Amino acid sequence: MGATIRILGLDPGLGRMGWGVIDMEGTRLSHVAHGVLTSSAKLELASRLMALHGLLAAIIAEHRPMAISVEQAFVAKDPSAALKLGHARAIALLAAAQAGLDVAEYAPNHIKKCVVGVGHAGKEQVMVMVKRLLPTARVEAADAADALAAAIAHAHLAGTRAKIMAALA
Amino acid sequence: MGATIRILGLDPGLGRMGWGVIDMEGTRLSHVAHGVLTSSAKLELASRLMALHGLLAAIIAEHRPMAISVEQAFVAKDPSAALKLGHARAIALLAAAQAGLDVAEYAPNHIKKCVVGVGHAGKEQVMVMVKRLLPTARVEAADAADALAAAIAHAHLAGTRAKIMAALA
Repeated sequence: MGATIRILGLDPGLGRMGWGVIDMEGTRLSHVAHGVLTSSAKLELASRLMALHGLLAAIIAEHRPMAISVEQAFVAKDPSAALKLGHARAIALLAAAQAGLDVAEYAPNHIKKCVVGVGHAGKEQVMVMVKRLLPTARVEAADAADALAAAIAHAHLAGTRAKIMAALA
Repeated sequence: MGATIRILGLDPGLGRMGWGVIDMEGTRLSHVAHGVLTSSAKLELASRLMALHGLLAAIIAEHRPMAISVEQAFVAKDPSAALKLGHARAIALLAAAQAGLDVAEYAPNHIKKCVVGVGHAGKEQVMVMVKRLLPTARVEAADAADALAAAIAHAHLAGTRAKIMAALA
């Protein structure tokens, strides 16, 4: 079981898109890279989307993840916020599909439960646990911590699946 | 003033995206092509977005429009509908920006006012006027008629601009 699985987690947003890459080897997780892609609200929407798409494609090309995990859109109460979020998510999903990668989506509460242990955890608790699980990651932005948390949630599920497969074998 | 301006109009939607291409020469409009891009709800969202993106890029490459006119998103009352619409619009805007084209956005009421004469016109009235303005177009789908209407609205504005420029010259 020496295979390493590289996972890219994304926290989509039009103004700020968090991303984080981790490696999973058996049950061991390690931090690879993370950051936040930003697009200026001064640019036209089409230019912002093109910029985000280009940056994201570059990250995928550089880190070559084997899976992408995206925080599922909570359906905002505010329709105009939902519309903006839809734009950003579409770019994330498109870039993943163009790279031939499957996209796993997890609800925010599911991610928090995987990472913190409870589904109603706050942003700070997610940050603390991400730092504990990935001690070499110097995460400062909440968006990047959320993206790494999405990647950890996917690793968690992949680990569980592997155990079930092993038990059935 | 023999220059022909080719305009691509789009009516973005995730399941059905209407498109229509017209030429404007002076104040004369002529129909070039139209259709509806569809993506199956049975596919994963990422695959649907990639399919729409590919089809739209192919239409842009084939017809080489000089401008793209998109019906502005009315902000739906339903946030989950707004999220879906955001996905589809992002793909339209991205494909336009990647082709180096400016995107003009017009509110649905503005388009109706340009095409029908009143901002609160129904779908059928838009269809009737599109057929009258573009007699050679055999439009049957409302999405395609809306896309052609968006292109006509842009031509209308471009024509008005040209008149103002001529008056000022």
